[in-house]
Amino acid sequence: MAHDIRIVTEAALRELVPLDLIAVDVVERGFAALSTGRAIMPPVLSMELPEIEAEVDAKTAVLPGFDSFALKVSTGFFQNAALGLPSLGGLMVVISARTGQVEAVLLDNGYLTDLRTAAAGAVAARHLAPAVEVAGVLGTGLQARAQILAAHLVRPFGRVLVWGRDAAKAKACAAEIGESLGIEARAEVDRARLVAESQLVVTTTASREPLVQADWLHPGLHITAMGSDMEAKIEIEPAALARADLYVADRVSQCAERGELRSAITAGLMPAEDHAELGAIVTGELPGRTAPDQVTIFDSTGTGAQDTAIALHALALAQNAGVGTVIKA
Amino acid sequence: MAHDIRIVTEAALRELVPLDLIAVDVVERGFAALSTGRAIMPPVLSMELPEIEAEVDAKTAVLPGFDSFALKVSTGFFQNAALGLPSLGGLMVVISARTGQVEAVLLDNGYLTDLRTAAAGAVAARHLAPAVEVAGVLGTGLQARAQILAAHLVRPFGRVLVWGRDAAKAKACAAEIGESLGIEARAEVDRARLVAESQLVVTTTASREPLVQADWLHPGLHITAMGSDMEAKIEIEPAALARADLYVADRVSQCAERGELRSAITAGLMPAEDHAELGAIVTGELPGRTAPDQVTIFDSTGTGAQDTAIALHALALAQNAGVGTVIKA
Repeated sequence: MAHDIRIVTEAALRELVPLDLIAVDVVERGFAALSTGRAIMPPVLSMELPEIEAEVDAKTAVLPGFDSFALKVSTGFFQNAALGLPSLGGLMVVISARTGQVEAVLLDNGYLTDLRTAAAGAVAARHLAPAVEVAGVLGTGLQARAQILAAHLVRPFGRVLVWGRDAAKAKACAAEIGESLGIEARAEVDRARLVAESQLVVTTTASREPLVQADWLHPGLHITAMGSDMEAKIEIEPAALARADLYVADRVSQCAERGELRSAITAGLMPAEDHAELGAIVTGELPGRTAPDQVTIFDSTGTGAQDTAIALHALALAQNAGVGTVIKA
Repeated sequence: MAHDIRIVTEAALRELVPLDLIAVDVVERGFAALSTGRAIMPPVLSMELPEIEAEVDAKTAVLPGFDSFALKVSTGFFQNAALGLPSLGGLMVVISARTGQVEAVLLDNGYLTDLRTAAAGAVAARHLAPAVEVAGVLGTGLQARAQILAAHLVRPFGRVLVWGRDAAKAKACAAEIGESLGIEARAEVDRARLVAESQLVVTTTASREPLVQADWLHPGLHITAMGSDMEAKIEIEPAALARADLYVADRVSQCAERGELRSAITAGLMPAEDHAELGAIVTGELPGRTAPDQVTIFDSTGTGAQDTAIALHALALAQNAGVGTVIKA
């Protein structure tokens, strides 16, 4: 029994689905839906190919209020640079939550993942960050830029500091951010100073050593740590999580396995359970920031709920615009 | 950096990829590759949607000697019949094992899964079944027919017995098999008699109670149990596994969680490890059947290795025939 399946390419998705407040709101609704008892999000399928420094993940979530769901396949092949190819890739399959029929294949090569990850940072900033004059970012890659652009949508700060292991890359990243936002942005070689000057810090590295020390926490600081998404990665000293006034996970069970929370549990500094999830803060079930001088930390590992939310948004835009190749299958 | 992605529909795949000895050989190579130390097959991603009697699985495996791999999404929505839709569906994504780039999307709606599952039964029969005059099958669905057609490719038996809960369906299934193979095929209402008369028995039901008793085992019998693929399902009395001369899993770790092996472990009748896998028998690392009067049981849960093998075969046929829609993405 053939039915229509819409195939949409990365190029089309980049045109159709910008990083804007609508995308942030869409991802926020995904977090809210995930926090209800009726959401179903299984553990990530994760395949490591250590011989070639590669990994393949699959994530999915069925959410109340969403008629369809995404199953996302994401690839990271870290020797691709030598071949002149991007390291990250993958696609999202959109499936009816009522019949299981495949409705669309979004050949996004990771674009929608970049988008929903940045949008999640903005959702966290919206509910957790204080007023922000200076935003700092650790890392100089695509997410460093995307996180800052997304956060600026909800906290229109006037200055940006960029730290990277490679000073030239940090400079280039700062220049790009400054131009995109029309604000002052500069590289900062001293991570401690970057944190001291910022009210919002986003960490976007693949570090396996803590880059932010617990001693650097100061009143009125929010940190979004999005780099750690697998065992062995860590960006924030575990003691910082315990010392913060509010630690928030995107999904506690996932953060305990692959987020910053993992190291803090191992160090005996945090329990494995009973932490706030961003969705419960979005819905008002739990409080977010309640005072300007609090220290808050958001641990972002990336959830299937974000994938479902952004994929359905992208598909709706593609359908409305009549974009994509429709195949009877 | 756009590259070509081939999209192939179910209708095209049904034309291109028949259930034949080539498909059996392809799946056999998949089992052989899985048995090497270098194969990588992560645990299945499994999402149950109990409110609507549905499940979604994702399976994958990277195999030595295969340049690409499949990540398969399979859906079972068991209230679909009321909507006039098939219960099973899904697709296979073919990804380069070298770069992670998506190479193809096979919109097979579960057809390739049916095919590789039947082919796996034939691989098991080839290495484990004795000479077969009579083949019996429990179940009357698509896999009942497919398993018998596949087994006949490697053990050209002359008679088939079909048991089903619904006598009319058993009759229809027998008639269809008889016509397809040009041999005698009839419904048999007594399961014990069916097993007694058969040298090869395939169980293809979604039963949650054992359908084959241990006492029914007789010298010179091979059983392929393919129905149980998730917790709660069972077709063979656990004592039968312990009593057989040779128990073979498609993948021990998977059978221990979702195959017949699970119940036998729970009953304390079988250890959780140290069982033969079909791949090791294919490669000759372990013996298969060594005498005509042995009793052998193959526990089929369905592996990502089979999916990779059949998907790459299907894609090669599609490429050779120039079939499918090629999208730059």
